Amino acid sequence: MYWSNTYISTLRDDPQEAEIPSHKLMLRAGLIRRLSGGLYTYMPMGLRALRKVESIVREEMDRAGGIEVLMPAMQPREIWETSGRADILEGVMFQITDRQDRAMVLGPTHEEVITDLISREINTYRQLPRTFYQIQTKFRDEIRPRFGLMRAKEFIMKDAYSFDVSWDAADASYQAMYDAYVRIFERCGLNARAVEADTGAMGGNCSHEFMVLTDAGEDAIVECASCEYAANTERAERRIPSRSTSHSEALEPMSTVSTPNQRTIEDVSTFLDIPAERMIKTLIFNADGKPVAALVPGDRDVCEQKLAQLVGAKNFEAADEAMVKNATGAPVGFAGPINLDVPLFADRSLEGLCDGITGANQKDLHYCNVSIERDTTIQTFHDIVLVKSGDGCPRCDTGTLSERRGVEVGHVFKLGTKYAEAFGATFLDEGGDLQTLTMGCYGIGISRTLQSAIEQCHDENGIVWPSALAPFQVAILILKNDHEASCEAAASLCEELEAMGIDVIVDDRKERPGVKFKDSDLLGFPVRVVVSERSLAGDEFEVKLRTASDPVMISVAGAANSIKDLLP
Amino acid sequence: MYWSNTYISTLRDDPQEAEIPSHKLMLRAGLIRRLSGGLYTYMPMGLRALRKVESIVREEMDRAGGIEVLMPAMQPREIWETSGRADILEGVMFQITDRQDRAMVLGPTHEEVITDLISREINTYRQLPRTFYQIQTKFRDEIRPRFGLMRAKEFIMKDAYSFDVSWDAADASYQAMYDAYVRIFERCGLNARAVEADTGAMGGNCSHEFMVLTDAGEDAIVECASCEYAANTERAERRIPSRSTSHSEALEPMSTVSTPNQRTIEDVSTFLDIPAERMIKTLIFNADGKPVAALVPGDRDVCEQKLAQLVGAKNFEAADEAMVKNATGAPVGFAGPINLDVPLFADRSLEGLCDGITGANQKDLHYCNVSIERDTTIQTFHDIVLVKSGDGCPRCDTGTLSERRGVEVGHVFKLGTKYAEAFGATFLDEGGDLQTLTMGCYGIGISRTLQSAIEQCHDENGIVWPSALAPFQVAILILKNDHEASCEAAASLCEELEAMGIDVIVDDRKERPGVKFKDSDLLGFPVRVVVSERSLAGDEFEVKLRTASDPVMISVAGAANSIKDLLP
Repeated sequence: MYWSNTYISTLRDDPQEAEIPSHKLMLRAGLIRRLSGGLYTYMPMGLRALRKVESIVREEMDRAGGIEVLMPAMQPREIWETSGRADILEGVMFQITDRQDRAMVLGPTHEEVITDLISREINTYRQLPRTFYQIQTKFRDEIRPRFGLMRAKEFIMKDAYSFDVSWDAADASYQAMYDAYVRIFERCGLNARAVEADTGAMGGNCSHEFMVLTDAGEDAIVECASCEYAANTERAERRIPSRSTSHSEALEPMSTVSTPNQRTIEDVSTFLDIPAERMIKTLIFNADGKPVAALVPGDRDVCEQKLAQLVGAKNFEAADEAMVKNATGAPVGFAGPINLDVPLFADRSLEGLCDGITGANQKDLHYCNVSIERDTTIQTFHDIVLVKSGDGCPRCDTGTLSERRGVEVGHVFKLGTKYAEAFGATFLDEGGDLQTLTMGCYGIGISRTLQSAIEQCHDENGIVWPSALAPFQVAILILKNDHEASCEAAASLCEELEAMGIDVIVDDRKERPGVKFKDSDLLGFPVRVVVSERSLAGDEFEVKLRTASDPVMISVAGAANSIKDLLP
Repeated sequence: MYWSNTYISTLRDDPQEAEIPSHKLMLRAGLIRRLSGGLYTYMPMGLRALRKVESIVREEMDRAGGIEVLMPAMQPREIWETSGRADILEGVMFQITDRQDRAMVLGPTHEEVITDLISREINTYRQLPRTFYQIQTKFRDEIRPRFGLMRAKEFIMKDAYSFDVSWDAADASYQAMYDAYVRIFERCGLNARAVEADTGAMGGNCSHEFMVLTDAGEDAIVECASCEYAANTERAERRIPSRSTSHSEALEPMSTVSTPNQRTIEDVSTFLDIPAERMIKTLIFNADGKPVAALVPGDRDVCEQKLAQLVGAKNFEAADEAMVKNATGAPVGFAGPINLDVPLFADRSLEGLCDGITGANQKDLHYCNVSIERDTTIQTFHDIVLVKSGDGCPRCDTGTLSERRGVEVGHVFKLGTKYAEAFGATFLDEGGDLQTLTMGCYGIGISRTLQSAIEQCHDENGIVWPSALAPFQVAILILKNDHEASCEAAASLCEELEAMGIDVIVDDRKERPGVKFKDSDLLGFPVRVVVSERSLAGDEFEVKLRTASDPVMISVAGAANSIKDLLP
C-alpha cells in the first residue's frame, strides 16, 4: 500500500477533547475522528488495526468451537420485558418507537435475542453443547461518554453465548472461552489479567473480567503479590485480620459516653483516644426505598455492590439525611446498631468484637464496651467491606493485596438458567426429560481492546504497536520521492514483503524527511525502513525497530528476509 | 468444516411469513431467522454467504481506488438539518433522544457524516480526488418491512463517496464506481442491469440504478429491445409518437359540447366517439400546498416523480377533491386548461395538438376543437408521462420499450456540490482560489444483493448458488457416518480441497441419505460429493453439480483436482 493511495492525516498537537494518552494518540495519528460525543469514525489506519483485533478474536473463537452468527442491533423491547431486564437497563438502552408504534431498543448486549432464538432452535441434548458468537456493533446511552473508544455510545463487541445440558457441562464451555480469552489478549500483545468480578445486572453466579492494567483504567482491582488471586474491588475479599487489641474492658457492661459535637469516626476516635478499628461504623442505606444498616470497623468503607447483592436490592444507594434521621432518630453521625429497628448487616471482621464503641442513635452520645454478639441482634456476619491496598490476601496465608487500575476488555459469566427459564429454552435430555438449558456469556470490547493496546504501548513520540495489531508492520520511507532508484528499490522491497504476508506501507509523499520520520513514529509501525540515495549507494537500507533507539544497516540483497526476521 | 461443528437447521415446509421464493428459501435453508418485523439474525450459512458478497465488494472497491473507513450508525440530527434533509427523511429515519436530551438519528445513509468529516480533512487540490467507502449497518423505519432482507429495518450496505475538484473530474470518479459495480454484480453471478434513474431525495443531476431482474422485484423498469437504453419507470422517457389523426376539425374554432354525467376519459371518449389520445387529460396536483395542473393525452398517466422534480416541490401528491373544486370551479372529471388559473405543465406529446377535447371546468361540459397553443397559455412542453410497454425508445429510431421488474441492488449518483455547499467543504485549487468540492455517492445493498442472488438462482429443490457466493463450494456427504473408510476418505478429500482454497463442508451427521441429499440441494452447494462404501469399493466418488441432473463418478486418486476443474 502506498501512502498516497490511502488517507492518513496526522495532527501536530494534542487535541483538546482528549484526556488520556491513547485517546490523544488515536486522534493525533488519525486513527479515529469524532462525529459527536461518544461517536467516532474509524479512519483507514484505525480500521486496519481494528480488523486485526477482530481477526484474532475470530480465529480464537473458531478454534474454541464458537459458531459465528450476526444478530440485529435493533431489538423489540418486549424481549427485555421477558427477561426482566427492561427496567434495570432502562437508562443504558437507547429507546426507539417505530412507525408502527412498537417499542424498540438498541441492544447493549444480546442475551435476550440469542435465548429467544435458541429456544426455537435447540430441542435435544444431541444438539448440545453449542457456543454462538458474533462481532457486532453495540449501543449504550452512556451518562458520560469519554476517553474516545474506551467509553463510547456506539462500539464494537464480540459477544458469545454457550448452551449446555448442565452446570458441569457449562463449566467446560466457560473454561474454553476463558482459555480463548487468555490467548486472544496474549496474541494482541496486551498485558491483561483475569480477575474475579461481580455479575451485576447480568446475573449468574461466577464471572471473570479481563483487565488491561493501566493507570488510565476506570476500574480498580486488587491483586495478591504472593499468589494468583486478583479481583475487581467491587467483589474482592480479604483475609480477616486477627484482632490486635485485647482490651481490658472486654465484656464489661455496655455504657454510654458523652461525645459533644463529635460526628465523624475520626472525631470520636481522637476524642475518646481509641483506635478507629474499635468503632462500629453504622451506615444507613436506601434499599428499594427501605432503610438497612451496614456495620463495618471504623477505619473501613462499605462495598456497596457486595451489600446490594446481599440485600437483594435493585435500587441501592446511601440513605439521605431524612431517611437516616427517620431510621435512627438521631442526626447523621450518631447511628449505631443498639435498638436500631432496621435490618442490620455486619462485616465479618466485627465478629467477636467485645469492646466496641458505637453511636447511640442520639445526638452527642456514644456507647462503649459494646459486645456485638451480646448487645446487638446480629448473629451472622458477611463480607461487606471495600478491600484496599495492604489488606491480606483471602486465598493465601501470607500475601498482601495491592490496588491497580485497569480497563475491562473482556468479561465472562456463568449465567446458569436465568435467561433460558425466562424464554422457555428447554431440551430433551438423554432420558427423554425436559430440562432447561444452562448458559454462559462472554464479551470482548473489540474497539476498547484496540485503544487499550495504545494506552499500554506508547512513548513520547507516539504509538508503539504490538506487531499483531499494527495497521502496517513495516513502513518504507522513500526519503526523496523524486529519486527514481529509491522509488524502485522501495517498490520491489514492498512487493517482496507483501508476498511474505507482511503488511507494508510505502511513504511516497513529497514531504521533508523529518515529517516522514515523525509520522512513522507517531503511527507506531513496528519496523521502519529508510530508502535514500546515500544508503542505496552502499547497497543498503536503514532499518529501525520502533522500540529500538538506533537503526541498523542491512544489505539490499536479502533485505526482505532480514526484515522478516527482525519483526517483533 | 464439519456439519456437526457448525449449526445448520433446515425447515421441511415453506414458512408462512415468507411471500417470495428467496425469502422462503433463506428461511428454509436456515440462512436467516426472524427476530421481529424487518429484523433478522444471520445464521452461520447466511453469514458465510454474506461475507462472500462483502469480500467481492471490498476487493472491487479497493481495486477502483476506494479507501475504506467506518462511520457511526448513530448520528446527531443537527447534521441532517445542515443538509436540509432532516424533514425530507423524517419518517424514514429512526429518531432517538439521548440522556443528554440531544436529538440523534440512525443513519439510513451517510452523506452528512462524510461531508462533515471531509470539510475538516481536505483543504487542497493536492488531496484530491478521493473516494471513501464503508461496509456498514444501516437503519430505515420502513412503512412495510417485507420480503426478508429485501426491505428490512436493519440492513448492510456498502456506501461510497467521491470528492473531486470539478464536475469533469467527478465524472471520472463516477465512471470508476460504475465500472466497479458492473464487475461486482458479474462476479456475484447476478444478471444485473444498469438503468437510468431518478435522483430523488439524494439530489444531484445524474444517477443509475443497478437492477437484478426478477418478477419479485419491487421496482419497474423499461428496457429497449434494440439498443442499450434502460431506465427506471420513475424517470424513463419515450419517443414522441407522430400524431396519427389529422382531423378535419383542425384549427376550427373552439366550441363547447354537453357531456352530461360523462366524468372519466373513457366515458367522454365513448360518448363523443373520439380516440382517448385526443383528450387533454387535466390532473390537479398538490405541490407544497398549492395546486398545479398536469396535461397529458387521455390514454396516458402522469409520472409523479418527473412532475414533482419539474415543479420543484418537496411534498407532492394528487390534489384532494376540495382542492380540485377550488382550483377548477367544477367537480372532479371536468378539469381543463382553458382559463384555468393555476400553473400548467403539459406533456411533450401534446405539442401541436389542434383538435383536442378537454374539460370546461364546468359540470357536464367539455371543449372540443382545442388547439393547445392557440387556446391555452402553454408555450413550453415537458416529458411528464409515465412510460409503458410498447412505447418507442427515446434513444434509437426503431426500438420498442418493454417493462421488467427488478430489485435495486446498487445506485450511483452524481451529487455535485449540494452537500459540500451545506457543510462548507471547500479546497484551494491550483490557482489558490477557494472552491467547493464536487461529490458523488454510490451504494450497494449487501444483504439485498445476497437475497437477490437467491431470487434469481433457485429451482424447486432449493437454492442454486452462484459459486462465488455459496457458503461452501463443495459439500462432501458421508452416506454412513459409522463407516470408517468413508469418514477417512471424506476427511482427506476435504483437507486437500481446503488446501486449494476451496470451501468445503462435510456432512458427517447420523442421518438418512435422503435427508442429506435434500439438505444439500436446499442449501444449494455448487458441487456435491457422495462418499459411500459402494463407491469406495470402486475407488471412486460420486460427484454431481447442483445444476446438473446426473452425477458422474471420479476416481479417488486425483479427486481434488477433478473437483476443482468441475467448479463453476
